[in-house]
Amino acid sequence: MSTQANRRQMCLVAFLQAQNCSNYPASWRHPEAASDFMSPAYYQRIARVLEDARFHLAFFDDRLAIPDMYHHDHAITVKHGIRSVKLDPVLVAQVMGLATTHLGIGCTYSTTYYEPFHVARVFATLDLLLSGRAAWNVVTSLNDSEAMNFGQSSHLGHDERYDRADEFMQVVLGHWATWADDAIVMDRTSGLFAHPDKVRALHHEGRFFKSKGPFTVPRSQQGQPILMQAGQSGRGREFAARWGELVFALYPTLEIGRKTYRDFKAQVASIGRNPDDVKVAPAIYVVAAPSQAMAEDKMALIDSLALPEDSFALLSEVLNFDFGAKPVDQPFTDAEMSSISGLQAMRDKVVTLSGKRNPTPADFVKFSGRGTVRECPAFVGTPQRIADQLEEWFADACDGFVVAATHVPGAYEDFARLVVPELQRRGLFHREYASPTLRGSLGIGSMVRAGPPAFP
Amino acid sequence: MSTQANRRQMCLVAFLQAQNCSNYPASWRHPEAASDFMSPAYYQRIARVLEDARFHLAFFDDRLAIPDMYHHDHAITVKHGIRSVKLDPVLVAQVMGLATTHLGIGCTYSTTYYEPFHVARVFATLDLLLSGRAAWNVVTSLNDSEAMNFGQSSHLGHDERYDRADEFMQVVLGHWATWADDAIVMDRTSGLFAHPDKVRALHHEGRFFKSKGPFTVPRSQQGQPILMQAGQSGRGREFAARWGELVFALYPTLEIGRKTYRDFKAQVASIGRNPDDVKVAPAIYVVAAPSQAMAEDKMALIDSLALPEDSFALLSEVLNFDFGAKPVDQPFTDAEMSSISGLQAMRDKVVTLSGKRNPTPADFVKFSGRGTVRECPAFVGTPQRIADQLEEWFADACDGFVVAATHVPGAYEDFARLVVPELQRRGLFHREYASPTLRGSLGIGSMVRAGPPAFP
Repeated sequence: MSTQANRRQMCLVAFLQAQNCSNYPASWRHPEAASDFMSPAYYQRIARVLEDARFHLAFFDDRLAIPDMYHHDHAITVKHGIRSVKLDPVLVAQVMGLATTHLGIGCTYSTTYYEPFHVARVFATLDLLLSGRAAWNVVTSLNDSEAMNFGQSSHLGHDERYDRADEFMQVVLGHWATWADDAIVMDRTSGLFAHPDKVRALHHEGRFFKSKGPFTVPRSQQGQPILMQAGQSGRGREFAARWGELVFALYPTLEIGRKTYRDFKAQVASIGRNPDDVKVAPAIYVVAAPSQAMAEDKMALIDSLALPEDSFALLSEVLNFDFGAKPVDQPFTDAEMSSISGLQAMRDKVVTLSGKRNPTPADFVKFSGRGTVRECPAFVGTPQRIADQLEEWFADACDGFVVAATHVPGAYEDFARLVVPELQRRGLFHREYASPTLRGSLGIGSMVRAGPPAFP
Repeated sequence: MSTQANRRQMCLVAFLQAQNCSNYPASWRHPEAASDFMSPAYYQRIARVLEDARFHLAFFDDRLAIPDMYHHDHAITVKHGIRSVKLDPVLVAQVMGLATTHLGIGCTYSTTYYEPFHVARVFATLDLLLSGRAAWNVVTSLNDSEAMNFGQSSHLGHDERYDRADEFMQVVLGHWATWADDAIVMDRTSGLFAHPDKVRALHHEGRFFKSKGPFTVPRSQQGQPILMQAGQSGRGREFAARWGELVFALYPTLEIGRKTYRDFKAQVASIGRNPDDVKVAPAIYVVAAPSQAMAEDKMALIDSLALPEDSFALLSEVLNFDFGAKPVDQPFTDAEMSSISGLQAMRDKVVTLSGKRNPTPADFVKFSGRGTVRECPAFVGTPQRIADQLEEWFADACDGFVVAATHVPGAYEDFARLVVPELQRRGLFHREYASPTLRGSLGIGSMVRAGPPAFP
């Protein structure tokens, strides 16, 4: 036990969606999937399973539109339930937080369509109400359907999006830094509520934002919410290295993962941050069962639920290109390839993996895996086999995993009952939370406790 | 009982704050006040008291800044705890909603600094998660400290604020109308998630906003959140008559209240709305005790907690004028009077009640009551005496009351135990919720169920 106590242990993160399906759009068609996704019970049930299994964090992605670029019509996605609902994730996240005591609770909010004062206040409030268990997944919005809901005709250019996001972070962290940990006294007898010299105004005036302060929310038990990030392109990775504390990755293969991990940690160190303060966790699906054959049967059922529309609708959305306009086997022209905007890392992945400069729509489905359970690596098998794979990846390609669900709550129930005990037996995963705060459980110090951020 | 069943009954609304004090800034200094305002327990405790007493609704005000205009310094308000904290109210409201099953849950969000798609999604989500119990208190933001946190140097002009707010409402209600009540099927066997012809895009393009849709949140159990409004000036009252369903009023006297109520209901009728679909509720303080002497002793203690800084800090904020710049007995010049912006109804009230064209800062404190328990009428006495007063007001000046708290949870506990049973005995207040939804309990139909809003 004493050797295990000092052993490096992985963090586990659940990847959730405040919508009718899991990350896998066909999941709602699974016979065991829960269908009460518009009620607190759905999310509380998952929360209890995750906390019981000692997951560090459950976090929600977000999207500010429903898919409607495929055939320029939303009817297809509404009909088939292809992510056709998206609730506000911070409210849904709080439902899980209030049903638990140690599980970290995160969600995505965009730096593109909200004001930094608002986002700073929302996440600081969530963090206080959950006694220091909140995380914010910082994204820039890249999709035209979202832009059109927020008064724009198209999304911002790639680099400008990140320039804006950098300044956004300065304002948010700046506000979070303005209340000292010990500012509040609340002494009725003397009438002293808080030390006036321990609350500062921010006076930020930059290129994109002005925000004066003082901020209206005192500092939480963990100093500030954990910052999550998933930037993959060059400029996005620079952003993640600067601000991220838990970095969500997509590794097509273990080899690519090892290189990505090594390079990214070096990049973090090169800007003067401690690489141990940034946890990297790739997304995976896990299908576990007592025997290999049972696991493969489970996976076959899951896989059979996908429709071609799932992939084309989601590809159209993430790449801002109507896949309905091209026959599935017709290669993209050079002009079409360069007209693709949105998630450039996905376009580039398809070119790399297919070995084709001009892939077809079918190649996009096959090599991106978008809308299928092949979008991220799927580990299918017995608890021992899955633990072997996780252990191999954890050795030199990551610090933990973002576990996506093939369906809920089943995928997490299986993971909790079968895989977690095996990881704990091997000393690869904690048996108890190390701290009541998320930051304490992850072992990451707070940036704002070290002083307000000073960036170029 | 059968005569009582048909009798007009009042609605009761609790007026809450996601901060260190109640609406009365000195409340945190009360020896019985709860101090755990940064934890869910504080709000859950109040929620249980209110639901047990059958209040229709608990709602939170909001402010996007802490007071810092008095002497141009926030040190005073931080030191004395004069509303120096303001958590995001929608998260705090949800905490109360998840601890209850029938209590309506409302909160304030500004039309000035947020995007309509965002606000529509936040309140639709809250409404769904609480099974049709949400309300949105629609405000326009009028304070310079708030503007300076959101990238502006000063707040928008009065009428432009309301023009923007009108279009904001069109977008929000427009989105809420786009999912039919029976859109979702979620049939795994056929694969039909929702009827494609029962979900529309909005395609709004106006002067201030563009928002395409489709909206991402299905319709709630009550059709849409209840809309609260508190506009008092001419343009503000026009806005309230157009959009409000529960209108929050400030009556300096019963006589003024009667006239305001009569005029406002006529205004509602004049634009073609049913006046019964708009409930008017003035804010009051209530200090109840078994004997008149005990109630007056309670009130004397409460009153003694106020500091002059409470009033000057809050007056400076709401009128965008530094009250620290003038001796307390020096009359405002004509130029100073006309330089006052912000809540013009409050300035005008002071002029009317003092009978002075050029009131002094001391007059502003006295006649606005800002920061004291005289800001709205205070009913102090036995349950019988309080019920007599409420009954008199309810007869022809209002449809219910917004009960502000001198301190929490004590003021609501006293009201629940002493006043509510007396109101129920008289048949003036319901004994059970008429419906699981807030709209059902209030007896107000949904605008969006009648079709998308069509306004000039």
